Amino acid sequence: MALRVTVWNEFIHERRDKEVRAVYPDGIHAALAGFLVEDGFSVRLASLEQPEHGLSEEILAQTDVLLWWSHIAHHLVSDVVAERIERRVLSGMGFIALHSSQKAKVFRRLLGASCGLKWRESGERERIWAVEPSHPICRGVPESFELPHEEMYGEPFAIPAPDEVLFLSWFPGGEVFRSGCTFTRGLGKIFYFQPGHESFPTYYDPIVQRIISNAVCWAAPSGGPKPTFGNYEKEKA
Amino acid sequence: MALRVTVWNEFIHERRDKEVRAVYPDGIHAALAGFLVEDGFSVRLASLEQPEHGLSEEILAQTDVLLWWSHIAHHLVSDVVAERIERRVLSGMGFIALHSSQKAKVFRRLLGASCGLKWRESGERERIWAVEPSHPICRGVPESFELPHEEMYGEPFAIPAPDEVLFLSWFPGGEVFRSGCTFTRGLGKIFYFQPGHESFPTYYDPIVQRIISNAVCWAAPSGGPKPTFGNYEKEKA
Amino acid sequence: MALRVTVWNEFIHERRDKEVRAVYPDGIHAALAGFLVEDGFSVRLASLEQPEHGLSEEILAQTDVLLWWSHIAHHLVSDVVAERIERRVLSGMGFIALHSSQKAKVFRRLLGASCGLKWRESGERERIWAVEPSHPICRGVPESFELPHEEMYGEPFAIPAPDEVLFLSWFPGGEVFRSGCTFTRGLGKIFYFQPGHESFPTYYDPIVQRIISNAVCWAAPSGGPKPTFGNYEKEKA
Amino acid sequence: MALRVTVWNEFIHERRDKEVRAVYPDGIHAALAGFLVEDGFSVRLASLEQPEHGLSEEILAQTDVLLWWSHIAHHLVSDVVAERIERRVLSGMGFIALHSSQKAKVFRRLLGASCGLKWRESGERERIWAVEPSHPICRGVPESFELPHEEMYGEPFAIPAPDEVLFLSWFPGGEVFRSGCTFTRGLGKIFYFQPGHESFPTYYDPIVQRIISNAVCWAAPSGGPKPTFGNYEKEKA
Repeated sequence: MALRVTVWNEFIHERRDKEVRAVYPDGIHAALAGFLVEDGFSVRLASLEQPEHGLSEEILAQTDVLLWWSHIAHHLVSDVVAERIERRVLSGMGFIALHSSQKAKVFRRLLGASCGLKWRESGERERIWAVEPSHPICRGVPESFELPHEEMYGEPFAIPAPDEVLFLSWFPGGEVFRSGCTFTRGLGKIFYFQPGHESFPTYYDPIVQRIISNAVCWAAPSGGPKPTFGNYEKEKA
Repeated sequence: MALRVTVWNEFIHERRDKEVRAVYPDGIHAALAGFLVEDGFSVRLASLEQPEHGLSEEILAQTDVLLWWSHIAHHLVSDVVAERIERRVLSGMGFIALHSSQKAKVFRRLLGASCGLKWRESGERERIWAVEPSHPICRGVPESFELPHEEMYGEPFAIPAPDEVLFLSWFPGGEVFRSGCTFTRGLGKIFYFQPGHESFPTYYDPIVQRIISNAVCWAAPSGGPKPTFGNYEKEKA
Repeated sequence: MALRVTVWNEFIHERRDKEVRAVYPDGIHAALAGFLVEDGFSVRLASLEQPEHGLSEEILAQTDVLLWWSHIAHHLVSDVVAERIERRVLSGMGFIALHSSQKAKVFRRLLGASCGLKWRESGERERIWAVEPSHPICRGVPESFELPHEEMYGEPFAIPAPDEVLFLSWFPGGEVFRSGCTFTRGLGKIFYFQPGHESFPTYYDPIVQRIISNAVCWAAPSGGPKPTFGNYEKEKA
Repeated sequence: MALRVTVWNEFIHERRDKEVRAVYPDGIHAALAGFLVEDGFSVRLASLEQPEHGLSEEILAQTDVLLWWSHIAHHLVSDVVAERIERRVLSGMGFIALHSSQKAKVFRRLLGASCGLKWRESGERERIWAVEPSHPICRGVPESFELPHEEMYGEPFAIPAPDEVLFLSWFPGGEVFRSGCTFTRGLGKIFYFQPGHESFPTYYDPIVQRIISNAVCWAAPSGGPKPTFGNYEKEKA
């Protein structure tokens, strides 16, 4: 059965800003869904303005991997929904946080850190190096590749030491960034991937698409044991 | 200058329960403070019933390392104080979570996980193995040692993969546990150490004391750079 | 195309010792091959007494994952073949080291450590806990399971901190062990799994078989980029 | 008692090449020793052309931390001495590998990897970012700093995933590098630090000196337990 992917987008820039709309006419989530469908995943869209932000218990229960893009509306995501997502990740749903989603409520709660970083919105060139070539997320990805225009994100990146650092990015202004990182929380696998500013066509780049598709496969629930907790005597009885 | 340590205890069992009081007449925090003072640290006590739980902004600002023991009153710690501690850890204060404090608000927020585990309150024997002997927290600690009576804590322990697993524990019922783990969040170093049930004299054990003293030294602020975040152009100007 | 697995065994105990032969009449490698074939892998056998130990350049070039079992003949493996295997691992072949193979030349060279441990050949009970349930090697594996008779392997285990510790084992004598560990070297993924003493029918246990099959899938080459090294100017020209 | 540091240098460039000698008239080892003595360490020099390369059993036994600089003569270090150093590291001596020493026999044996990388000898600018500011090696180090002229070293760097990545470097040509990494092997702590090409005055830079001094403190033997290995029954008897 195809992996079930839900792509969530705050979907604000694309409606407010003509330039962004020119790049992503149906929203960043639609662009992401486009190649994910082609890659054979079963894809659902969701966004902020929907009831429960489109992320009801039922929908989350039917989601293997949740992709997340947010930027200016982190605070508009309700605590109830944020907690719901967090619980689903801990019980096994994969979570892929894209670009500015490093400040999303769910991501910060799962990481337990401020996720601060440096940024510069200058549309400069970004060069991305694959530094763990044996990782499944690097399948079919070149040793390095370039995006002609991206937002600069620079170190220090205030995250806990990732389980794995897969990509390191270079920017012309003298900055570097851990642009592809994995984490595990409970049964859930988490991937953060930095490229994807709303005004650049990053999600149409075939290598970026490849990385995100690979990450969906990697982040899917493993089918491992569901741990049992609590008073052990009672459970044995 | 001596490292400044604040020892926090919910301090409930010792007052409610004669048996616990027999072991820790002045509270677990007083027992911890006892050997820490002998080891040359500057120690302050704090507990739940004090105003702001004894953890005002001012006191936290003067604390290099905070020790934490809580069990039945995690939920009584105010969100304001929990957030305050969390912020202090991210900006460099060390945090040592003892025993049942794996369910403390602050610890769970910093780890981003449920911190579930198995337990059995049977006073059985615990054998603790040092598995990273080169770590400064293992200084002067034997390869393995035993506590005659402890609460069993068993895997799976629902924590993120620790930066370092220093101790593994064995229990007679067939359980194992990652009983000494380090984490980093922001500038703050965190150590979790499992032994220390309230009804057993664990904190009088000289090896346990040694480990906790070592951990205070290890968790003290490093004097590294304070990262700057945000719009980088502006900051350079 | 099916993953190509080569199962290597020193194949000495089974021929010298009637009791071992009773358990593994055709050798441990044949027992391993048995369930791997059923799981759909393309399996080849190799052993010490063959020319080049059955591991010619050609055979290694056609091997996606190499399983290794050795115990009393580590030193009889030629340096030439050991180096050849090491090179193949660095260039992407998966390597699964079973039981006493933690002292195999190849494993020690790849890990850069002595791989010392404690042992006791007493056929006692081993209880194995899955502590990273989200890992693909844990797919279909219970939270814990028991082997009625195994050789005790105890900490400290003198390995570098593994990339991931998947299994922790408990033994009745008071010992614990990191019994399932992953490492990466170059493009090669490495899994060490402790159970499998020659005189016990461990490799007929369906959970053990499941873990090893999962590990083969996990350790297969990822299809990531082949890094280029050296004078970079020249390479660009 | 002061930590006992031995600084080893192949000491070839400085004698063959006038330009290098102009920078390091008494050798790179002497320049390193200079600031280490000022920082209060007890320092000894050693180099390739000495009997046993200046690294007899006796001298190594009296060394807490060994600094290593080699470049064109890795293969001239005898296997006997390389093995001797390796054994000392496994039993607790700290090891700091500088610059091109990533290809030193000892370093590669301890890491179990090829340690390949990209390089360009162009004297270009290097910018170094501290990405784990809470680490003791970052004490007193700024968030980032620049070296006006260094050799470019670029990813992928074929090392095992480090225990900790402390520094990331940026080069003008579009390359990034994990320029400060820690590893543990046995009881020994290892730090790799990339800057230090022989023709640039890198080791006179006060921040570089600070990092190396910090690393010596960090890498010193911890005083932890010496593990016991082997047949455990016998040892208990």
